[in-house]
Amino acid sequence: MDQRRPHIVILGAGFGGLNTALTLAKDNVDVTLIDRQNHHLFQPLLYQVATATLSPADIAAPIRSIVRKHKNIRVLLDTVKGISSTTKTVALQHCNSVSYDYLVIATGARHSYLGNDMWEDFAPGLKTIDDATKVRREVLLALEYAEIETDQMRRDALLTFIVIGGGPTGVEMAGAIAELARTSVSMDFRSITPHCSRIILIDSGDRLLKSFPASLSVKAKDSLEALGVEMYLGRRISEVQDHGVKIGDKWVMAQTVVWAAGVQASPAALWLGVNPVQGGRVAVASDLSVAGFSDVFAIGDTASCADVDGQILPGVAPVAKQQGRHVAKTIMARIAGKPSADFRYRNYGNMATIGRKRAVADFGRFQIAGFPAWILWCTVHILFLSNYRNRLIVGMHWFWNYVTFERNARLITGASGAKAITILPHDM
Amino acid sequence: MDQRRPHIVILGAGFGGLNTALTLAKDNVDVTLIDRQNHHLFQPLLYQVATATLSPADIAAPIRSIVRKHKNIRVLLDTVKGISSTTKTVALQHCNSVSYDYLVIATGARHSYLGNDMWEDFAPGLKTIDDATKVRREVLLALEYAEIETDQMRRDALLTFIVIGGGPTGVEMAGAIAELARTSVSMDFRSITPHCSRIILIDSGDRLLKSFPASLSVKAKDSLEALGVEMYLGRRISEVQDHGVKIGDKWVMAQTVVWAAGVQASPAALWLGVNPVQGGRVAVASDLSVAGFSDVFAIGDTASCADVDGQILPGVAPVAKQQGRHVAKTIMARIAGKPSADFRYRNYGNMATIGRKRAVADFGRFQIAGFPAWILWCTVHILFLSNYRNRLIVGMHWFWNYVTFERNARLITGASGAKAITILPHDM
Repeated sequence: MDQRRPHIVILGAGFGGLNTALTLAKDNVDVTLIDRQNHHLFQPLLYQVATATLSPADIAAPIRSIVRKHKNIRVLLDTVKGISSTTKTVALQHCNSVSYDYLVIATGARHSYLGNDMWEDFAPGLKTIDDATKVRREVLLALEYAEIETDQMRRDALLTFIVIGGGPTGVEMAGAIAELARTSVSMDFRSITPHCSRIILIDSGDRLLKSFPASLSVKAKDSLEALGVEMYLGRRISEVQDHGVKIGDKWVMAQTVVWAAGVQASPAALWLGVNPVQGGRVAVASDLSVAGFSDVFAIGDTASCADVDGQILPGVAPVAKQQGRHVAKTIMARIAGKPSADFRYRNYGNMATIGRKRAVADFGRFQIAGFPAWILWCTVHILFLSNYRNRLIVGMHWFWNYVTFERNARLITGASGAKAITILPHDM
Repeated sequence: MDQRRPHIVILGAGFGGLNTALTLAKDNVDVTLIDRQNHHLFQPLLYQVATATLSPADIAAPIRSIVRKHKNIRVLLDTVKGISSTTKTVALQHCNSVSYDYLVIATGARHSYLGNDMWEDFAPGLKTIDDATKVRREVLLALEYAEIETDQMRRDALLTFIVIGGGPTGVEMAGAIAELARTSVSMDFRSITPHCSRIILIDSGDRLLKSFPASLSVKAKDSLEALGVEMYLGRRISEVQDHGVKIGDKWVMAQTVVWAAGVQASPAALWLGVNPVQGGRVAVASDLSVAGFSDVFAIGDTASCADVDGQILPGVAPVAKQQGRHVAKTIMARIAGKPSADFRYRNYGNMATIGRKRAVADFGRFQIAGFPAWILWCTVHILFLSNYRNRLIVGMHWFWNYVTFERNARLITGASGAKAITILPHDM
């Protein structure tokens, strides 16, 4: 690399970081893209890995392969330990440190247990491939153990699946678990029947999908009810244990609990020594730079960015992608000594899918729901996947699943790291 | 289930056990198929999961789905603890026990370290999906760390991949690692080049593939040499450590070591209280029943079965499959009070593949090698996969890999359970 060229360091190769890097690919700069994982993950489809429709490799691509052709981009597999804005360096775990001229923080978010971190053991969230294969293992093991359980109470608990959080992830998980537990149970098991399974979705708000118009919340609720999902809205979780969840003051016994209720930004505020705003995010100016750091930018789930109407932008892929492209242009404008534009988010619409053939979609002026929304959802998500092979494979899996109800990624793997099944069958 | 029908219990849903069950599917008997995993694994392609060409779900199918239509077959996910031939019961870990009229033991084999079990930590073998994702993670991590390593000796060790054992699995692994390390390195990495990687294949015998004719051993050796694999034949391993392998009295430093040298049968002999023969196997009569147990059969890698010429049959899929079908017919003949035939193995040929487009195939009277053998190998393996979806997906992956050299399952996952990388980069 030519050391005299400006060096842009990007932390995180999610939607935000990857789009920053790709936008800089043809510019006269050196780019270093650092991530803890070797793959870019298409997180919106992670729930389909957790529910055995897709394989991990179908929704992930090696970061190195994505940027292969762009010789000005270097990829490092490493973990950030800290940032020094005085020496303009990032401290890493394996490499000692790397210096930057411009720094883009796009390290995303993890799920947050709202101060109850001990709940994580019993209610895993869904952010990485390992999270998803863990949830998949727990759901499939619960069905297997239910098949040989003779004690009614234990069997009921094994066949109760609780999803906490009624946003898009929670809605999608609940619908997918409902279909998995009921269709595979009715086809492949001998002792348990579809009527044995309970799928419960809990949210503290009074409606699902609160970022969507109320009419779509109703449609989503109806679709989930048609799939047999019980919903507890306006109810709070007061405790999560290995044997179940306490809703208000009532315990519901369940072997499998999935957490989809809120996220916590990565510790960018800590690295920079600034005060975090809501959800641990870093406040950014209209050009996405962090206040007080003209050469440090934050984007995606790590940044708290206000829209023109003063609303804080949500932590979704389109925001991160647009911010990634914007910050690349801002940096190039700075290098050229030109003025840079303010970031404006263009909202092309929001979608959530419910089960194998329904979805809701909000385009501001109009909404659609049901099967047409699902077809649209499939099309958009296939187009957004990062390479042609994955588009083809995912499209095939969905078509196959739609026609046959089959889920072929129903593998129980990595059992050594699994949560112990606490409600063990004791007799046959 | 009708309890008066004869109950056949099958331990293991590999090639042997699954074929026994499927052959009994239309008979007037009850079948219980027990396996520790929820999936049937197509083990001959496991090395392609370890080297990132295929995803686990491409070569595995849920056992329940495979036998779905056959209502006389029940599937249990459980682990065998012991067998009592006096009470005719199998003790299980989760279910208390299950009784049988006829028992078929098809529990396969694990890799064997020939009395050096402590080597397993440093040189994982390849029998399960978790084994394969572990090897995949180690190979890919070694490349990642080599990219940022500046110390020449440490970098050389990171880029040295040793495969121990020159049978089909070892040959296939060495070829696949060579192509992976060299092509992905040349395309995706910036600091390391294909010439940096060493792939070493070690076998104590004087030729590779000793179950094949000598002419094919030579062809396999030539093909591997063309891929840049170094071979040490007639050499023994005296020590395996976290930093490398001692060949004779010389240490070769290597971060990644894969074990493909010998297997140990599952503890069926222990369960039955009989003396094991070579490799821990159970000796069986010509009808595949275990000596002294007229209603207990052993098949596949667990059984030691002599061919008509007195040769012990090898632990390969076709033997297990034919034995599975044979034992089902023997049991039905017994139930009907008819005489049963002796087992005769029909050897249709042996194959091994080397890299992305070469193979060797032995059909007794004639042999083929190179590209035509590879086309044949692909065809045969796709036809043997257990369902249409997997055939289609695997065929697509191979075609894609052949045309583009791409390996899209290059995911580093499950890192929390990984062997610590002992040769850590210390500087950048």
